[in-house]
Order: sequence, then C-alpha cells, then structure tokens
Amino acid sequence: MRIATLTSGGDCPGLNAVIRGIVRTAADFGSTVVGYEDGWVGLMEDRRIQLYDDENIDRILLRGGTILGTGRLHPDEFKSGIDRIKANLEDAGIDALIPIGGEGTLKGAKWLADNDIPVVGVPKTIDNDVNGTDYTFGFDTAVCVATDAIDRLHTTAESHNRVMIVEVMGRHVGWIALHSGMAGGAHYIVVPEEPFDIAEICKAMERRFQMGEKYGIVVVAEGALPKPGTMDFNEGGVDQFGHQTFNGIGQVIGDEIKRRTGHDVRTTVLGHIQRGGTPTAYDRVLATRYGVHAARACHEGKFGICVALHGEHIDLIPLEEAVGTLKRVPIGRIRTAQQLFG
Amino acid sequence: MRIATLTSGGDCPGLNAVIRGIVRTAADFGSTVVGYEDGWVGLMEDRRIQLYDDENIDRILLRGGTILGTGRLHPDEFKSGIDRIKANLEDAGIDALIPIGGEGTLKGAKWLADNDIPVVGVPKTIDNDVNGTDYTFGFDTAVCVATDAIDRLHTTAESHNRVMIVEVMGRHVGWIALHSGMAGGAHYIVVPEEPFDIAEICKAMERRFQMGEKYGIVVVAEGALPKPGTMDFNEGGVDQFGHQTFNGIGQVIGDEIKRRTGHDVRTTVLGHIQRGGTPTAYDRVLATRYGVHAARACHEGKFGICVALHGEHIDLIPLEEAVGTLKRVPIGRIRTAQQLFG
Amino acid sequence: MRIATLTSGGDCPGLNAVIRGIVRTAADFGSTVVGYEDGWVGLMEDRRIQLYDDENIDRILLRGGTILGTGRLHPDEFKSGIDRIKANLEDAGIDALIPIGGEGTLKGAKWLADNDIPVVGVPKTIDNDVNGTDYTFGFDTAVCVATDAIDRLHTTAESHNRVMIVEVMGRHVGWIALHSGMAGGAHYIVVPEEPFDIAEICKAMERRFQMGEKYGIVVVAEGALPKPGTMDFNEGGVDQFGHQTFNGIGQVIGDEIKRRTGHDVRTTVLGHIQRGGTPTAYDRVLATRYGVHAARACHEGKFGICVALHGEHIDLIPLEEAVGTLKRVPIGRIRTAQQLFG
Amino acid sequence: MRIATLTSGGDCPGLNAVIRGIVRTAADFGSTVVGYEDGWVGLMEDRRIQLYDDENIDRILLRGGTILGTGRLHPDEFKSGIDRIKANLEDAGIDALIPIGGEGTLKGAKWLADNDIPVVGVPKTIDNDVNGTDYTFGFDTAVCVATDAIDRLHTTAESHNRVMIVEVMGRHVGWIALHSGMAGGAHYIVVPEEPFDIAEICKAMERRFQMGEKYGIVVVAEGALPKPGTMDFNEGGVDQFGHQTFNGIGQVIGDEIKRRTGHDVRTTVLGHIQRGGTPTAYDRVLATRYGVHAARACHEGKFGICVALHGEHIDLIPLEEAVGTLKRVPIGRIRTAQQLFG
Repeated sequence: MRIATLTSGGDCPGLNAVIRGIVRTAADFGSTVVGYEDGWVGLMEDRRIQLYDDENIDRILLRGGTILGTGRLHPDEFKSGIDRIKANLEDAGIDALIPIGGEGTLKGAKWLADNDIPVVGVPKTIDNDVNGTDYTFGFDTAVCVATDAIDRLHTTAESHNRVMIVEVMGRHVGWIALHSGMAGGAHYIVVPEEPFDIAEICKAMERRFQMGEKYGIVVVAEGALPKPGTMDFNEGGVDQFGHQTFNGIGQVIGDEIKRRTGHDVRTTVLGHIQRGGTPTAYDRVLATRYGVHAARACHEGKFGICVALHGEHIDLIPLEEAVGTLKRVPIGRIRTAQQLFG
Repeated sequence: MRIATLTSGGDCPGLNAVIRGIVRTAADFGSTVVGYEDGWVGLMEDRRIQLYDDENIDRILLRGGTILGTGRLHPDEFKSGIDRIKANLEDAGIDALIPIGGEGTLKGAKWLADNDIPVVGVPKTIDNDVNGTDYTFGFDTAVCVATDAIDRLHTTAESHNRVMIVEVMGRHVGWIALHSGMAGGAHYIVVPEEPFDIAEICKAMERRFQMGEKYGIVVVAEGALPKPGTMDFNEGGVDQFGHQTFNGIGQVIGDEIKRRTGHDVRTTVLGHIQRGGTPTAYDRVLATRYGVHAARACHEGKFGICVALHGEHIDLIPLEEAVGTLKRVPIGRIRTAQQLFG
Repeated sequence: MRIATLTSGGDCPGLNAVIRGIVRTAADFGSTVVGYEDGWVGLMEDRRIQLYDDENIDRILLRGGTILGTGRLHPDEFKSGIDRIKANLEDAGIDALIPIGGEGTLKGAKWLADNDIPVVGVPKTIDNDVNGTDYTFGFDTAVCVATDAIDRLHTTAESHNRVMIVEVMGRHVGWIALHSGMAGGAHYIVVPEEPFDIAEICKAMERRFQMGEKYGIVVVAEGALPKPGTMDFNEGGVDQFGHQTFNGIGQVIGDEIKRRTGHDVRTTVLGHIQRGGTPTAYDRVLATRYGVHAARACHEGKFGICVALHGEHIDLIPLEEAVGTLKRVPIGRIRTAQQLFG
Repeated sequence: MRIATLTSGGDCPGLNAVIRGIVRTAADFGSTVVGYEDGWVGLMEDRRIQLYDDENIDRILLRGGTILGTGRLHPDEFKSGIDRIKANLEDAGIDALIPIGGEGTLKGAKWLADNDIPVVGVPKTIDNDVNGTDYTFGFDTAVCVATDAIDRLHTTAESHNRVMIVEVMGRHVGWIALHSGMAGGAHYIVVPEEPFDIAEICKAMERRFQMGEKYGIVVVAEGALPKPGTMDFNEGGVDQFGHQTFNGIGQVIGDEIKRRTGHDVRTTVLGHIQRGGTPTAYDRVLATRYGVHAARACHEGKFGICVALHGEHIDLIPLEEAVGTLKRVPIGRIRTAQQLFG
C-alpha cells in the first residue's frame, strides 16, 4: 500500500509524532509513505518527498513544527483544483491520503472524501477547538507553555504590587485560557465564549487588594470580546478567510483596568512560543497513537473518517462530526474556573 | 457545612491542588474545611488542622506532596478503629469526609460509607491503576519526569554505543512505562501485564545494531517479570501488605543483556523523583476539578461515591467501581507501543 | 549584631536566595535580621519585618520575586530623607544595612556610606549591567527563559517559512540578547551597544533563503537603535528617571523586514516572563553566596563595599567600582556572536 | 587550513556546540573541518567524517552527546600508536587538531604537542575538575538536572517524614554535589574532598526532627568516603585505569542513617541522566565560545595550548596548566555550604 500524508494550517507540537506513527505503522504492514510539502499547496503542485522508516524518522518525535512544512490554501482554489489533486494522487500511485490539520483542513478532507478520494483525517489544533474528539495534540504543550509563563508572572506581579494581564492564544475558543488559567491559579479568566464586563474584572482585582493581597493575574484569550455597550475599543478587522480579528485585547483590557483602578498594570502577549518547540509527553503519546490508528484505518479500508480521542480510546468518527462548528468551552467549565478565583 | 479531608498512601503531585479545590469551593458555599494529618492515622488520632480560604491555599497549587502529610494504616487497625473514627468525626462536627488516595484508600472509604459515614472519594495514584476513571492526577507528572529522563539518556547512549535500561515506577501496572516509553521513543518497553522474554529483548537490541544504529533504550516497569522458566533471578520478597516485591528488575535485565550480547549496558533507576515536585498543568487542572466536584457532591448530599474523569467530564461513580481490582494496561495498547519499536 | 536588608528596583530571580543567605549566616553568628518593605520607601517609612531563621526562610530559595517587596524612589526624595533614614536605622538598632539592587540602588548605597551609614551592597540585575562583577544573579534565569522561547520559535518559523523577531529585555545593554541569541542559535542579534543597519539584517535573512534555508531568527534587545539616518521610526519618549524609552523596536524591525523583503515576519515580545519565576541553579548558587559573603562582611566590619563575582571567587569591591557607568557588551563578544550567524 | 577535531572520554552536554563553533568559525576563515569518530580510537583507525558548514551543523547546538561518538583509549595504546597518529594526520592533510575532553584527554593532547603535533585543547567535563579554567561546559547542565531532582525530592520527603539521600556524580571531586546541594537547599552535603563522619550526618538530621522539621535531604557525591575508622563498608574495587571505585555510597549512607536513627530513609541514584540531554543556555554559550576561540587559535598559529574561562573572558593557557592534578572543591566553599544547612 502507498500512503500519502500532509500537514496543513498553523503548525502544532506533535505533527512530527503523527508522521512518525504513520511511517512506522505503515512499515509494519509493508507499506510505504510519502509526504506532500507545505499542506494542500504541495498536493496541488505535486511536491512530495519519500519518508523512510529509519533512524531519522525516530529523531523527529521530539521536534516541534512539521518536517513537511505547512501552508494555507483558500478553499476556492482548493476546490477548483480537484481534478489536479486526483491526477496527482493517481500519478503517484497513492492508495490513501492522511491530511493532518484543524477544522478547515478536515473540511477539505471531507470534500475530498465526497469526491471519492480515500481519506483518513487526523485532527490537529493547539486551540482544542475540533469537535468529536476529547482533546487534540498540541493543546497540552500550549497550555504548559502558558502555565509556565503565568507561574513566572505571579512572583514579579507580587513583588511590584501589579495587575498582570496575560494574553494567550484562542481566537475563537477559550480552552488555552481556561486550562492555563486554572493550572496557573489566575484570579480572572476571560474567554471568547462569554463576553466580559470590564467593570467586573476591575471589581475582582479591587476585592483582592482590599483583602490584603498585593497583586492579581488576569488570563485573556486573544479572541475575547467585551459585552456590547460596556466598553469602547477598536474592534479590529477581517482577515483573508473572513474571520474577524481583534488585535491586542490583552493590552486593551490592561489599559482600561489601569485607567479605572489606578493600579500598576502590565500586559504580556505570549504569542508564537505557545505553538513551537518540543511537545509534552502527553502530546507525543496522543499524536503517536493518532498516527498509528490512522495508518491502521487505511489498511483496514476505512475511509472518510477521522481519528478521535474518547476517554482512553482512539476511535474512528465520520469526518462530518469533526467539521461545521468549533468546539467551544461549555458554560459549566467556565463556572468551575470562576469558583476558584477566590 | 463542615467538610474534612485527608490524603493517604504514597504522595502524588496534585494532592495540594485537590485540597485547594475543596477549600475554595466549600468557601463559595459558605462551608469550612479541616484536614486530618498523615492520612487515616490522623483521623484515628484526631489530629486535624483548620484550612482557611486565604492566599496560603493558593500558594499550594504548585507544590508537590501534601500539606496534610500522608501515611499508611494497616486495614485491620483501620477496621478495628471504626468506633473511634465515628466518635472523632462526630466530636469535630464533620458533615462529610473526602479521603484522597489510591485503590487501598478508596477501599477504606467504601468501608466507611458502608458504616454510614458520608464519604466522597478522590482517586489518586501516579501509577494510573484505579478503575472507573480515565486517568488519575500525578500520572502525567510522573510520565513527564520519566520522559525527560529518557530524552536525556538517548544522547548519552548514542555517544557511547550503549544499551540503556530505564527502570520506572509501576509495581503492578505498566502505565508509566508505556506512556513514557512511547513519548520517549523507547526501543523496547517491558510492563508487568505481559511477562517478558529476555531473548526477545536481546534480539530487538541486536537488530538495531545490525541495522547500523548505535544504541538502544529499554524502559522497564519496576514490577516487570520474566516469562516463567526463561530466566533465573531472585524474585524478591513480600511486603507488610502482602504484596510481592521484586527489587532491581532493571538491573537484572541490564546485566542479562550485557551477558548475552556483549554490548555495553547501563541501568538507571529513576525512583522517587517521579512522584515529587511541581505538578504539570494537566495534573493541576485535573486535580483542581476533582476537588471542586468532590466539594460540590458533598453539598448536593451525594455520598458513597467517587469523582472520576470520563472523556472531558468529571462524573460521580459508586465507590465499588473504583476498588477490587487494579486498572491494567490493555493488550491493545501494548501492541500499539510495540508497533513503534522499529 | 542587628542587620537590616532591603530589595530595590526591578525584581529579579534570586533576591530571596540572597535574603536566605543573609539570614542563615547571621544566625550562625548569633545575629538577627530585619527586612524593610518595598525598597528604600520602606526604610523611609520605617516599615520593617523580622526575618526568622526557620523553615520558612528555606522555602523562599526557589521562589522568584522578593518576599520584601520592591519599589523605586526618586533620588531627590531619597537624598532629602537622609535624616529620617538615619533616625529610623538608629531607632531600630540597626548595625549594618545590606541593600540589594542594581546600579541605581548601589548609587544610593554609596551615598548612605558617604553619610557614615555602615552599608554592604549586593548587585542585582537581570540585565547584567553592573560594573565590577563578572555576572549578576537573575541574568542566567532571564537568558534561560529567552533561550527556551527562541528554541520554540525555531520550529514554528521553519514550518511556516517565516522570519521571527524576538524582542528580549535590555534597555541599555545587550547581554540577554547576546547570550540567549548565542545559546538559541539566532541568525542575527541586535544589541544597544552597536546601532543596527536594517539593510544588513535584511541581507542576512535574504542570504539564508537563497541558500535554501526556510526561515530566520533575529534576537533584538529592547533598547536597540538604528544607525542614525538609516531608518525612520518613532523614537519613544523619556521616563520619569530621565531614561530615553524606545517602545516596540522588535515590531519596528519586523515590519521593516517584511516591507523590504516580502517575507512573512512575526514578532514576539517576551516581556515580564524573563524576570519572574524560580531562579536557575546557577542563580540560586550565586545569590546564596552573595548573601553569605555580605553577612560575613558585616560581621568583619567591612563597609562601604559591595560583593562581586570574580571568576570562581566572591570578592568585596569598593561601591564606587560598581556605579557611575553601566557594564556594556564589549565589541569582541559581539564579533564572536556574529561569527556564528552563518 | 584543514582542522580536525575529536571528542574523547565521557560524553557531556555542549560537545556538539563546541563542534559547531569550530566549524562555523573555520568556515569564516575559509577553512574546512573533519571529525574523527569515537575519540582517539577513531584517530588511530583513521575513521573520519567531513563536517559541513550547513544547516545540519546548526541543528546540533541543542543536542546532547556528541555527533562524533566518543571512546576511551588506554594511555599505553595511545602512546605506542604515535607514529600511526602522525601518519594519519599527515595523510589527511590536517594542519591542526582540536581534541575535546577531560583531564585524561588533555594529557594526551599535551603528549601530542610534545611530539610536534599542532594541538589546541578544549576542556570538557561535567565534573568541573579540570584545572586552569573557572568552569567547564556540561557542569551547569549536570547541576541543573541534579537540582531539579532535589527540588522534587523535598516535597515527597516532607509528605512522608523521610530522610532522602541523593547520590550525584563526582567520583573524585564534589562540585556537582556542592552546587546542586546549595541550589537545592540540601540539609547536608558530602563531598570526596572531606571524608564524612556518619555520626555528624545523623546528628544533623536528628536536630532537624527535634526542631519540628519533618524531613531532611542529604546530597552525596558518588566518590564520597567516610573518615577512616568511623564506619565499615565495602570499599569497592579498582577500574581498568587504576582508579579506585566505590559503588553505592549513597545507599551505604542511607542504610546507616536508618540503622542509627530509626527514621524512614530512601536513596535515589541519579546516574546517567546528569550527563545527557539538551545543554543549558549557560553551557551552550560557554561551549560555543570555546569552539570559536579554539578555531581562532589554530588560525593564529597558537598551539600546545588549551582554551580556558577566566571570569568573563576566554583565555589560552599552556596545556600543562590543565593537567596533572584535578581541580578540587576548596575548603572555603565547603564551609559556605555548611553555613546554610541550618
């Protein structure tokens, strides 16, 4: 059997572990694997490299990013290129394709499956916003990096009697903010799922200072938005894919807390360090299992599906379960976090 | 409401996060919390301390171990002391007891519940061997420490053309060995669930050297045992709780590989560093949620139960589901790991 | 003997290790220690707390920030308050004062010494810009945090074919940029000591892409400035202490590289995470030794001096050697770094 | 110019950073570099590989161990092979040789220099026992790994009221024990430089328990020895190089403390994890600078010397200053550590 794989969308710690899992498992079945470079673009342009089951494939387990490169392709270009995709796969003798990516990539995978291409999807996102799976790899690493940063900010905030704002990734969902905020003992967490009231954040900080505490930590997802009418701020623009963008919400919140309370406030935007570097053990195990199970599915002739984590098990789910909407933080989890602000 | 808690059995990163979760949630309900010192012993001897919902309770989130201390009590002593336990809880005006511990502790909790004491259990074990819950807190931290060690051993093994044996915790189950071995790219993993054949391990190492590799990493759970009749070694003794003990299986395997293959072999026993220190973000979140949900269960009058992780959710399960047998690594997971040895 | 200590200026990992070193050593001599809160301000306002030689003093070794709090006092206020300072020290029966701080703080210490107050200074700065000592504690921790971030950015930059700008601390000197850039394998390092030529940075990046590399990492000290006339940008303002400030030089450089080369460029500003959190082993050892030697100097009646690291040894140097100018990166070290850009 | 390098003796984090520094600097001078495999053995057997100034040389910066492999050669074999060494170097057109290794390797380097071979030595040892240089690379990484382990053991020791013994590397000198013990807040440190009195260690632990502390941490260098006549134990043997070996001193001390005091005692032997894995930022900078300066020395025609760290500077010292004796921990540093046991 001849399997192809590609990584698409934003990079994510664990992508290489999936690739290794695919290659090792395929080799165990006597199959070979090629990788397309730079995501769907490489498939369109037929840029592929052979992946060998040798010591080099082992070395990538610890390496962040993706050895195949990644890229974004506009859905229109992607769809209009279907004949070329089919021709490229046929010419290369590919029996199965394993695209690794987020909701957008899996939408593309579903569309290929609808066009009779044998596809097994692997969900990937540091944001943990793909439906149908408990968690995605990359998320734990991002939470660890953010938590480590929050741990560090506690002591400097306390030494200087400051309110510290930490802006973490999460344009549409608040999973990273929620988990890193809970793990880091944040005193307030702001997520896109629930518009914030700046007055309430200020009140929470004031209450801490009144009780003799010397500082406060507020974790903010980059996609957080104020309740309509509660605060003026520049609401950003719209990116090439039609997503609204809101730049610098952490700074906006920080400035407003300072203005309203008079406290010394500093904002840190964690940025790209959340998505790079060696994956955590959790992410390496999850990504490896995804790769193994995706390659097995190919050999069992199961296509049009996607691997997914359910409790302790890796299951195969229809691709449509993974696409369409994003997985958002449920209100109950937000309440649990709030119960701990103290 | 007046809630009591205690931590029993081996210590585990995340115990303090559970305690914090209980105290913060109880305070939210207007309740107070006391902690018994040194596990069941402290309950028997009525040694308790008041836990306040102040900044000190926040500081413990990152701290390994348990601020309450822990201990082991022989089941017979425990059972014969039931009247004293009841009297102590009554005198202290305790409305609910939250014991945090492993399978043995939860067995004790069940027995108290059978004796009409309102109990909510919290499963704890770095070994991940409690039934009824997907994962236990402390396990991720132990896996991270072991994986970090394996990462380090790769380079030194390769530089010296060595086979490295890493003995990790897991007296009865192989979860830590399995996950750290998969995350660390081990070339062989030995777990208690499947007796090992020393000849097969040697063959796997030999195959690597024949293929031009320069080294090998073997991860061994401390409770691993050879297939009957395949190898002579001193099988250890029996501890005070009737568990059989097998000291130094890592060294035994290492010595035998050296004897049979002639390769340079070194053994590292990770030991107690796997159970100490700051918990990972994953463990802090899981432990915190356990604490919150255990305290909520008390306020909802749900007793004789135990918190448990199922997928993304924290559920309440009957205590009997958590006790009786240990959760062992299923054969399918062992096969997945083996598929990656390469 | 009765010793007082205080921490002044920006906080720094290792401050608590110095305090512990002072308290433990003083106890060994049968002396006691008090700490003034929030730097010079606490001395002016006579806010002090007794520091005991008990287990709590041990716990602070790993803790970032300063248990005494810190603050900044304008030199004029400081100087006009000399009588109050003398009175406060006398009333409290203080025999020796150990201020821990950067160049500004040591200037204050010198001025107190000139006014007959028995002072032993301890140099502190994450920026490593104090003269007379090889290295200051806090610097190694800052470099480690920055290096870890750079390590993470390599993989995400490579996966997306990006130029990554990392802005690190260093308003006046480039030590953090130099060391983290060397440790992190940066492809260009920009320090305040040598005004940069944006055309040269662009050329270095272009050369990498031409040679088949897929990305570049540029480390920029926050105080970096362009060669006069080579680039237009908003040069910031002047802070309350008369220091010129240049906000966002990383973003400025990133935008310009993007504009000139057309490459995808992202900027990350590391910010306060560089100065918080648990100190590295190196910083704990150095800070502890500083504390021990400062307390010893007090008991030997050596005042008007400052502890300093020279090779393997802790020496005592006159305070005037530590103040007046900042320790800048020598040109030879910059050349060494450049030789590695490749 | 054509430069050769090799790595000899025990591996050490930072070796690859030296190699990268040499290759990059040589390229800057228009020179090329070859590496001999497996230390002196590879030079004897003329096994060499070309090292290119490309992206692969950058990737090794973070990698522990040595891409060249390492080995040990008995001094007699080494010396009797001088003609072959000369012939091999001549045949390969080598103009300068940079051996990287510990005291033994540098002794070999000196002997080559005495035989008219142009040599520049680079000192390497995680043990920090080479004379003439303030610190060696690898040492900081080893201290960090050991300190991280000690940090973890504090909380588990305290939770179980235990005395924890941590055996760290250091067969002849106590630098790792001293620094990790100081950084980790150990309550007793045992180094080879000062024979220990077991009664005194027990007394120190007893004093802690009497003062209400619940645990103790003792850091022991593997080469520690009791004061003659104070304790019976099996003194080990003699290795092939004539060094006396003392296996398991940590366990010996732990057993004796348990026997004498009755406290619960556990011993952890850190082993090979101290010498593997990604080097710290400190070690990467130091190793890189060593590589740059060694390559420069070759181009300046300075031979028979060794690079060395003196304060902030890299100097060149005669090889004889680095060999002959080991650098031991001075008594003053031991006293400083003792002042902190508390």
